[in-house]
Amino acid sequence: MTISVAVSGASGYSGGEVLRLLAGHPDVSIGAITAHSNAGTRLGELQPHLHALADRVLGETTVENLAGHDVVFLALPHGASAAIAAQLDADTLVIDAGADHRLEDPQAWEKFYGSAHAGTWPYGLPELPGHRDRLKGARRIAVPGCYPTSSLLALTPGFAAGLLEPDDVVIVSASGTSGAGKAAKPHLLGSEVLGGMSPYGVGGSHRHTPEIEQGLSAAAGETVAVSFTPTLAPMARGILTTATAKVRRGTDPAELRAAWEAAYAGEHFVRVLPEGQWPATKMVVGSNYAVMQLAYDAHANRVIVSCVIDNLNKGTAGGAVQSMNIALGLEETAGLTQQGVAP
Amino acid sequence: MTISVAVSGASGYSGGEVLRLLAGHPDVSIGAITAHSNAGTRLGELQPHLHALADRVLGETTVENLAGHDVVFLALPHGASAAIAAQLDADTLVIDAGADHRLEDPQAWEKFYGSAHAGTWPYGLPELPGHRDRLKGARRIAVPGCYPTSSLLALTPGFAAGLLEPDDVVIVSASGTSGAGKAAKPHLLGSEVLGGMSPYGVGGSHRHTPEIEQGLSAAAGETVAVSFTPTLAPMARGILTTATAKVRRGTDPAELRAAWEAAYAGEHFVRVLPEGQWPATKMVVGSNYAVMQLAYDAHANRVIVSCVIDNLNKGTAGGAVQSMNIALGLEETAGLTQQGVAP
Amino acid sequence: MTISVAVSGASGYSGGEVLRLLAGHPDVSIGAITAHSNAGTRLGELQPHLHALADRVLGETTVENLAGHDVVFLALPHGASAAIAAQLDADTLVIDAGADHRLEDPQAWEKFYGSAHAGTWPYGLPELPGHRDRLKGARRIAVPGCYPTSSLLALTPGFAAGLLEPDDVVIVSASGTSGAGKAAKPHLLGSEVLGGMSPYGVGGSHRHTPEIEQGLSAAAGETVAVSFTPTLAPMARGILTTATAKVRRGTDPAELRAAWEAAYAGEHFVRVLPEGQWPATKMVVGSNYAVMQLAYDAHANRVIVSCVIDNLNKGTAGGAVQSMNIALGLEETAGLTQQGVAP
Amino acid sequence: MTISVAVSGASGYSGGEVLRLLAGHPDVSIGAITAHSNAGTRLGELQPHLHALADRVLGETTVENLAGHDVVFLALPHGASAAIAAQLDADTLVIDAGADHRLEDPQAWEKFYGSAHAGTWPYGLPELPGHRDRLKGARRIAVPGCYPTSSLLALTPGFAAGLLEPDDVVIVSASGTSGAGKAAKPHLLGSEVLGGMSPYGVGGSHRHTPEIEQGLSAAAGETVAVSFTPTLAPMARGILTTATAKVRRGTDPAELRAAWEAAYAGEHFVRVLPEGQWPATKMVVGSNYAVMQLAYDAHANRVIVSCVIDNLNKGTAGGAVQSMNIALGLEETAGLTQQGVAP
Repeated sequence: MTISVAVSGASGYSGGEVLRLLAGHPDVSIGAITAHSNAGTRLGELQPHLHALADRVLGETTVENLAGHDVVFLALPHGASAAIAAQLDADTLVIDAGADHRLEDPQAWEKFYGSAHAGTWPYGLPELPGHRDRLKGARRIAVPGCYPTSSLLALTPGFAAGLLEPDDVVIVSASGTSGAGKAAKPHLLGSEVLGGMSPYGVGGSHRHTPEIEQGLSAAAGETVAVSFTPTLAPMARGILTTATAKVRRGTDPAELRAAWEAAYAGEHFVRVLPEGQWPATKMVVGSNYAVMQLAYDAHANRVIVSCVIDNLNKGTAGGAVQSMNIALGLEETAGLTQQGVAP
Repeated sequence: MTISVAVSGASGYSGGEVLRLLAGHPDVSIGAITAHSNAGTRLGELQPHLHALADRVLGETTVENLAGHDVVFLALPHGASAAIAAQLDADTLVIDAGADHRLEDPQAWEKFYGSAHAGTWPYGLPELPGHRDRLKGARRIAVPGCYPTSSLLALTPGFAAGLLEPDDVVIVSASGTSGAGKAAKPHLLGSEVLGGMSPYGVGGSHRHTPEIEQGLSAAAGETVAVSFTPTLAPMARGILTTATAKVRRGTDPAELRAAWEAAYAGEHFVRVLPEGQWPATKMVVGSNYAVMQLAYDAHANRVIVSCVIDNLNKGTAGGAVQSMNIALGLEETAGLTQQGVAP
Repeated sequence: MTISVAVSGASGYSGGEVLRLLAGHPDVSIGAITAHSNAGTRLGELQPHLHALADRVLGETTVENLAGHDVVFLALPHGASAAIAAQLDADTLVIDAGADHRLEDPQAWEKFYGSAHAGTWPYGLPELPGHRDRLKGARRIAVPGCYPTSSLLALTPGFAAGLLEPDDVVIVSASGTSGAGKAAKPHLLGSEVLGGMSPYGVGGSHRHTPEIEQGLSAAAGETVAVSFTPTLAPMARGILTTATAKVRRGTDPAELRAAWEAAYAGEHFVRVLPEGQWPATKMVVGSNYAVMQLAYDAHANRVIVSCVIDNLNKGTAGGAVQSMNIALGLEETAGLTQQGVAP
Repeated sequence: MTISVAVSGASGYSGGEVLRLLAGHPDVSIGAITAHSNAGTRLGELQPHLHALADRVLGETTVENLAGHDVVFLALPHGASAAIAAQLDADTLVIDAGADHRLEDPQAWEKFYGSAHAGTWPYGLPELPGHRDRLKGARRIAVPGCYPTSSLLALTPGFAAGLLEPDDVVIVSASGTSGAGKAAKPHLLGSEVLGGMSPYGVGGSHRHTPEIEQGLSAAAGETVAVSFTPTLAPMARGILTTATAKVRRGTDPAELRAAWEAAYAGEHFVRVLPEGQWPATKMVVGSNYAVMQLAYDAHANRVIVSCVIDNLNKGTAGGAVQSMNIALGLEETAGLTQQGVAP
């Protein structure tokens, strides 16, 4: 049986990656492809790498155009998805690549997004404890942010095993520029980005901070405070997250590695590398894998975890399609690119 | 029925890309994976983006290890494939990603490669007139060079239609660094490559020059002389070829576009873009497509064709797998990545 | 004696590079720094690399603000400089980094720029035959375009010596993204540019084509027709120009090298590399040098010249300051960066 | 009076940058330029961006060749400088760009470098409290490592003012590839580096860790433990350091900004940006500046400092020349590039 899908926000980077994956998905037929200002344009002009869909013309992002599909992917500015989802059939699987339904705490939402909270949907990161079950049969799914995906995969095993102190987590991530989207802003010009790095959202102001803390706190069973600093790197795709936390007194360092390996032993898309090998973003660009390695720094009594993902793939579109597969009972790996594209 | 394949030179970029595609090929099972100095090493150390094959250990590149497979891919230094092929069963499909069997003229081979000519095999560029038929049922195939692939696809339609002058072709190509291979040479260091461009092999000395002239001369039915200049660009993958030739007097410019569109009308992996849209290497990185656009410059009476490919994919491994599919009567597109990975 | 200078268009890349050089010029004091939409902003916000000028505030680009300086640099959109220059004192040295006064042929101007021709000023490329003398004492100077600078330096020696055929010149240039300016356009985003190359202005439509032909025709003493194709490379700065022309029958290849070496023997900022060494853009990034190498391709009977410059330095701001030095009788090298910044 | 200088290790990136700066230094004449395996080669082949020195031929790195100069710069593998320095006249200013004489603790040296400690020299980071005075008149100077330069400038003001907790410092730095040197290693190939990021030396094993702790402990007056993680970024030059520490209870956040601004109020080459503006490595590439910004994260009670330098300039060669200027009583800014080269 073929599943009909609609994709909104198809002119952006997230929507484009969703389409790239769906175009290769064996169980899916791509229905409506919609956008806002680009409605009426050939997809070939906006996403010229999607050869199979070059002649498709974008429709307007309206409930009418999105309705009547088994699955609707929303890749819209935050604040836009709740209204549309409310008008789509309850049996329709709505997968929101935006932020609207990720946070559980309305106050956190309002503080960081400045609007009314639209409610919380099952969180599309099946590798976190308990989450895969919540996704099975779900009809509303919130896709995690790209930084939270890499940060939560990096540190959850340690918190879930009770090995880490909750009050002293530091995360510094480097992201490719596609994470900043396709809107033409001067500081994102190639001339500004090529050959340089810069931080942004420093000091706890980045909107992904509460999402990271929410996930780590759930794993720890207590409130985890995170200092998170994102940086912009001169690459189009990929996130390298360096995450570190204090190790609880009395922990045998050997427990650390064992905890991470146990946490992901059964996971197809998460790899803990053999000791001595460290991740690189190019191991995962174009693929749905998250790859990590950890080290214990005795003199600082910290565990340092390096985790890499493709921000558009596992960090957005891959996570969305993986969640769709789970929700609909399809093969979890269906349509997901396995190997990275390197060099 | 499943086809068993062996891949030699698996630690290099070409071999890695062959493995990336074969790992996703529905009709193939990957047998021996071999290398020279890296024999005995886990593939996961050398090609960490190939998650599905991470635990495979490389064997020694010997006839013994390669024999007994339906297909053997050779990604070896030039001069090495003839001896191995001679010892492999005549029914075994041997696909040489190296240069040894591309040239028809022994003198050209000896001039540019300085060794004895090993003979000529069917040429793995099915989009050239007559070549697809020659590949059907073939058991020895020479994969074209990456520059010739883009150059021949760019200009063959005009020469085959008799619209271009044979004595004045100029081709300038920009290639990503992976085309230079994985051997650690100082001028290929990231520090040297990042943020800069440089030419090499200027003045007709690049080994791909006779291969380009061979193909264009065959299409033209007369000797075509080419000035070819390759340049190294700060990107890992992709070739942008700018190819230009004088237009025969009396040619109606409208004939040019018609000739190119007609030449590739039935081709799955070659696209002539709609008028006004120009190619970019990122349209094809990670995919087997060649994408091109042409313009007629009246004041210089020249046609200028821009053609982009992924040097490792359509330019090497994709062409090799596409040729395998044709030779064995498989679906021509089987296992070949359709969409580019962008941005 | 100190020369007072004003710089308009100071928020753009060209204006920023002019300021970078002037800030280190021993004979200059920087007066008005002006812009259009950015008037009123601290320079430190717009050009944060210009530490010495961080606290200067941009004024409005008006005749009032620019008047009263010994030298006025105009880095404005084309069409804007004539009106301002007309109102500046005839003794004021006005150096236009824009295109308005480069072309001698009003019809060529109107064809490519679509406005009325504003007249022709001495051309700021002193290394071309006769041009240095025309710059001495000049009070109006047109700075060449970046592509013409590299193209004219590459081929003028051969045409001036009568060694090249005028009807068959092909030039393909790769430029860093700063050549496209600081206006935020989607195709110039880092995500689009990083890791890829693309052509533009193909088929003789680029505005630098007539400027290149004007210069080569002057050197040849007859009309030279050029096929020029610019491409965009994933680097912030630098131009690599590959320029090729047919060699006149009967020319001894040895004459070629001799002609180029003789042409630049006395030039400080132009180097013909020793035989066997080829240029790379990183040899000149951050400096005012043009570096080139040539090869004779006997089988195509063509000379191929590779020439590299920094598009913002020798290609714009460096050429402007060098021209100022000559016009005012200062040391020609004053304030010009000598060494490239590499790696 | 002109100072004669000799530069060893001139074929590497550090030596090349020392030469780039010295070539523009008004008080210096460049004497011996030496190397090891590259002795006898024209500098133009190895450092083709140093146009002014292209025809200089490298000598052998021997005491005989280095002796007899007022200043000798050593850019040698660690362990090599002590023996040479011991044979150079005590009046000769020897500036070691290597690690040999940076550490005060012999045990730390032996643990991280595995050889006998060669003793400690005055540390060439004059912006640290008390260091400028120690450099005046010095005849032996150890140039800091690039990571320590950015890390110590980032956090010293807070520790010197007693505002930070000593037991919980986390530093994550992203460095351009030139920091890894010019030796051709596979993981440093452009193909591997372009478009990707990776960590290395994770878990406290990087040799710069004890150097950072030494400097911060000196400022704090107590032992400071640091978790330091370096990462490799796809850029040739530049370091972005993200440094964070817990703020002492009872500290008024306003004290933080005041402490940093006071610490660098009189410094020419260190800028604390206006509030709201964040550093980018391209602000300082090609220049001797360090630029930083800080933020207080109340919910994690941490100060986060972002500091950027050019690893080859302020991080190595610029720091070396600045130290030379101080030691010899020259203008501290002489020969040092002021403006960054951007974009």
